[in-house]
Amino acid sequence: MSGFVSFVGSGPGDPELLTLKAVDRLKAADAVLFDDLSSGPILGHTKPGADLVGVGKRAGRPSPKQSHVSQLLVEYASTGARVVRLKSGDGGMFGRLEEELLALKAAGIPYEIIPGIPSACAAAAAAGIPLTRRLTARRVQFVTGHGVDGQLPADLNLPALADAQATTVVFMGKRTFPRLADALMANGLPGTTPALLAEEISRPEQSLTRSTVAELARSLRAAPSGTAALILYGALAAEGGGDA
Amino acid sequence: MSGFVSFVGSGPGDPELLTLKAVDRLKAADAVLFDDLSSGPILGHTKPGADLVGVGKRAGRPSPKQSHVSQLLVEYASTGARVVRLKSGDGGMFGRLEEELLALKAAGIPYEIIPGIPSACAAAAAAGIPLTRRLTARRVQFVTGHGVDGQLPADLNLPALADAQATTVVFMGKRTFPRLADALMANGLPGTTPALLAEEISRPEQSLTRSTVAELARSLRAAPSGTAALILYGALAAEGGGDA
Repeated sequence: MSGFVSFVGSGPGDPELLTLKAVDRLKAADAVLFDDLSSGPILGHTKPGADLVGVGKRAGRPSPKQSHVSQLLVEYASTGARVVRLKSGDGGMFGRLEEELLALKAAGIPYEIIPGIPSACAAAAAAGIPLTRRLTARRVQFVTGHGVDGQLPADLNLPALADAQATTVVFMGKRTFPRLADALMANGLPGTTPALLAEEISRPEQSLTRSTVAELARSLRAAPSGTAALILYGALAAEGGGDA
Repeated sequence: MSGFVSFVGSGPGDPELLTLKAVDRLKAADAVLFDDLSSGPILGHTKPGADLVGVGKRAGRPSPKQSHVSQLLVEYASTGARVVRLKSGDGGMFGRLEEELLALKAAGIPYEIIPGIPSACAAAAAAGIPLTRRLTARRVQFVTGHGVDGQLPADLNLPALADAQATTVVFMGKRTFPRLADALMANGLPGTTPALLAEEISRPEQSLTRSTVAELARSLRAAPSGTAALILYGALAAEGGGDA
C-alpha cells in the first residue's frame, strides 16, 4: 500500500501567499513535514488529527540530518498516507529538494512538486521593486551564501556575481556577507552598489533596510545576527519605497 | 476620489497556482487589466460586471504601447475603481512592472505588489527537477532573450551565462536561442550541456523536451515557432522524469 508525497512550496511565510493547490494538498494531508519558515498559520489549513512534524534546519543550529528527513518521508508514505512535504519559498531553490526526490524514487513512492512563491520575489514585492529592468537589469541571479560547512562556498562564480548590471539575491548569506562583499569588490563590484537587507519577509516583523554593499558588509560584520534574511544588490535595490 | 491598484502575479497559467491573496484581489476588483498568459480560467474569479481588459503583448506581434497600458491603469484607478493589474508569472521578473509603478506614483495613486509563481519555478516543478543543487548548482539565473527590438540583447553578460555550474533559464528566448547558443558556446559552454524546452507551462498543452544546448539550437533554427516557452540549461536539465 503506497502513499503519495506532495512537495509543496509554502511561499515566504504569509499564509495568504499559499497557492490554491497548496491549500488543497494541506487539507487532504494525513501528515505534514514542515520547515521552520513554513509553520505557524500555514499549518492551520490541515485537518484535525493530521501529524504535523517539524524538520526545520535553522541557520546556526545543528541540522537534523537530511537523510533522516528523507527516511521520515519514506516511512510516512509507506503506511499509505498522503504526505505533504512543506518547504519554505519555492522548494526547488536552495531547498535540498533533490535529495528527498531521490529517496522517494528509490523507494518507488509517487510524488508531485508544487511550486511556491520564492522569498526573493516576495522581498522585492514588499520593497516595491521589480527584479528586472529593461535595458539595465536583464539578468537576475539567486545564490546561496551558505555552503555545506556553513561558510561562504569557496567556488562561487565571483565575476558573474560582481556584475552591477544584474540583480543578485543572496539566500542564507547574512553571516557570510562581509566575506562575500570583500570578494565581490575585489572582482570589480563598486562598494556603492545599492543593497537591500530583507528580514522576516511577508511576516508582521518584516524589516527592509536599504544600504550599499560596502555599508551592509560593515554593519553585518559589527552586529551579526541569525534571523532569516535575504540580501539583494544591484541598481534596483535603491528604488521603491518599501511602503507600497 | 482615488482608486487602488493591485499588481498581481498570476503564476504560469494554471488557475490552481494563484495565491489566496490573488484570488481575494480578483474577487474584489472592479477592473482587471490582464496579459495574454494570465487570462482564461483565472478570470473566472472576478465578480459579475467587472471590466476585463486584455493588454497582452504576444511575442512576434506588434506590442500595444507600454505607455498606453500605464495610461489605462491610471484612468481606471482615477475613477475610484479597485483595479487588478494581472501579470503572468511573477510580475517583478521581465514584466515591465517598473514602468507602470512609475506612472501610478506620478499620478499619486496607491498600489500594492503581490508576488506570483514564476514560470521558471513552475517549469522546473513540472519537469521534476530543482533549480539548485548542493555543491554543483549553487547559482540560478534568469535572463531575457528578447531585447527591446525583439532581437537577442547585445549586452548580455555572456561569461556569466556560459557557466555550466549554474542553472540558467531564458525567458522569451525561443526565437533568439540559436544565436544565444552560438555565443554561449563561443564563451566556453559545452554544446553538450543539458537543455530543457518548456512550452505552455502548467497548461493542458504543456510540453517538456529534453535535449542539449547545441541540439536545441539546431532544432529551433530549423523550426522556429512563436508559442510561449522557457529554455532551461545546466546539469539539472537532464534530471527528473517529467512525469512527476
